[in-house]
Amino acid sequence: MASVRIALDVMGGDHAPQSTLDGAKQALDSWPDLVLLLCGDEARLKALLPKHGLEGFLGSRIELLHAPTVVTMEDKGTAVLKEKKDSSMRVAAQAVREGRAHGVVSMGHTGAAMVASSMVIGRLEGVDRPGLACVMPNKQGRPTVLIDVGSNVDCRAEHIAQFGVMGAVYAEQVLGVPNPKVGVLSVGEEETKGTEVTREAAALLRTLPLNFAGNAEGRDIWNGNFDVIACDGFVGNVVLKSSEALAGAIVAGIREALTSSMTAKLGALLVKPGLKNFFRKLDYREYGGLPLLGIKGVSVIGHGSSDAKAVKNGIGAAMRTFEGKVSERISAGIAGLLPKD
Amino acid sequence: MASVRIALDVMGGDHAPQSTLDGAKQALDSWPDLVLLLCGDEARLKALLPKHGLEGFLGSRIELLHAPTVVTMEDKGTAVLKEKKDSSMRVAAQAVREGRAHGVVSMGHTGAAMVASSMVIGRLEGVDRPGLACVMPNKQGRPTVLIDVGSNVDCRAEHIAQFGVMGAVYAEQVLGVPNPKVGVLSVGEEETKGTEVTREAAALLRTLPLNFAGNAEGRDIWNGNFDVIACDGFVGNVVLKSSEALAGAIVAGIREALTSSMTAKLGALLVKPGLKNFFRKLDYREYGGLPLLGIKGVSVIGHGSSDAKAVKNGIGAAMRTFEGKVSERISAGIAGLLPKD
Repeated sequence: MASVRIALDVMGGDHAPQSTLDGAKQALDSWPDLVLLLCGDEARLKALLPKHGLEGFLGSRIELLHAPTVVTMEDKGTAVLKEKKDSSMRVAAQAVREGRAHGVVSMGHTGAAMVASSMVIGRLEGVDRPGLACVMPNKQGRPTVLIDVGSNVDCRAEHIAQFGVMGAVYAEQVLGVPNPKVGVLSVGEEETKGTEVTREAAALLRTLPLNFAGNAEGRDIWNGNFDVIACDGFVGNVVLKSSEALAGAIVAGIREALTSSMTAKLGALLVKPGLKNFFRKLDYREYGGLPLLGIKGVSVIGHGSSDAKAVKNGIGAAMRTFEGKVSERISAGIAGLLPKD
Repeated sequence: MASVRIALDVMGGDHAPQSTLDGAKQALDSWPDLVLLLCGDEARLKALLPKHGLEGFLGSRIELLHAPTVVTMEDKGTAVLKEKKDSSMRVAAQAVREGRAHGVVSMGHTGAAMVASSMVIGRLEGVDRPGLACVMPNKQGRPTVLIDVGSNVDCRAEHIAQFGVMGAVYAEQVLGVPNPKVGVLSVGEEETKGTEVTREAAALLRTLPLNFAGNAEGRDIWNGNFDVIACDGFVGNVVLKSSEALAGAIVAGIREALTSSMTAKLGALLVKPGLKNFFRKLDYREYGGLPLLGIKGVSVIGHGSSDAKAVKNGIGAAMRTFEGKVSERISAGIAGLLPKD
């Protein structure tokens, strides 16, 4: 069995390195073809391995890549290119660039992870701004790809159009959606609705050989009317964070309602199995991280608050993105779809 | 008892005039001090009154204002100023301008209702763009005012700052929140995060004698960390529509889980009372409509898909907004807060 080599930014995330090392252990136990390149301060990592049950993997399925510094939330995204070239995040991306790893996983500073992936691993031809894609589970039980959720702010129309193209290739080639229906996120379905930028992005997408269906609205993220919704990373990020918090608040409210009285508590026992299954679908930790589309390799970027389970699933997402040849497929797809200069 | 006179755009909304007339009946039955000015084609309205049990109110608590045309979703928002001056929406706003009504309620084209309210009723001094405010029920059981959710797109920094100011006055004076904490919606809490416009809006708000707390993130809409969150109407509209659809999908998923087996069905009976209460909080029909802040009068704008219950509650919201002297309070508050030219 050929191994899949993933570089893990051990120091990225609110609960790192505990959560990342525990997640690494779970991933190594789950997937025998996984090899992990752990990026962080080598001496510190070496000392931590036994505590997380990882020392047995060293030399066979774990390699250590020395990175003395860490990108913090106070750093600018571009710090990985300048003052923090020796950070765990940059070193992990570098491993992909040099062909030592197939993909990189980071739960650190999203902006910095996007810069490291775009600039160090490099963008595909025809892509100005790689986009972070989130696969939303919709009401009809099918996926909707929302792209960009990675805070690419002040996007121009062509950036949003490229997000639409990459999302369409991802939906078709990776998620198996035939002829995916693409929309541009706006404030009304009519062509006249939206900002100058969204209207121009829609006009660009309309000229391409895509199943472009015009403007999508906020509700379309969840109702299954579109397979791909392209948007500026500002609104995508706000919607994603707001949705996570709303779902969390609703789940908390329901838990409270289920324990509000003795009768409710009894009923809760009976409805628990069905609800548990449903609640799991709403839990971002199940997805682990989001693929950055449009780069020459694999990069999965996770939540800062990721726990071990989320880290494990993020590593799994990177493995699937590599095995699914997402980068190659987007490269081929975008070559056929993007307007020629 | 002094009466409260509300002009109702009978023809506005997806289910008008059935839903608006049924809602009018419910409102008249609920609030004895309410007088309704029904705006629409007079002959048609007169013929419809008996079917909705309204004929007994005519001449006492119902007046008819003739408006032969209707603003449709295909019209531009500005149609109320030009080709559709005789529309039910414009005639309703005109009644407020002329002092014949204390407030207007419309479930029609949101953009057109905002134009009619801003231009016909008129803006308060110091307000460039009135903002549609949504009071979100947050996790801590306190309200968070999100403004603007009314699709004011391509806002400049001073517009967003004014939304923050109006939201703060509304939270303090109407919702009774002492010294409300105000934020600007962005993609990270650090000052450097966001677009040029959001960073400038934050800089403007920082100079005012307000409890301004910097950037809010998507999650802050639901977690109760801010009392007021100001944003461009594009992102506000997308978040609002997305949240409604997500909440709807979660409620539907939970209903399904509660009927997935005989055991679950039995349990569902026991947990129903607690859940019902909670689900009600998520139902936009309970709120009926949103107040447009920054105009010289009262305007409540509801959902296009409003049913009779939502229309009734929208009329109730307009009555409370009038009785709460919201417009006067915002006018006084904004005079003390806005920077002088």
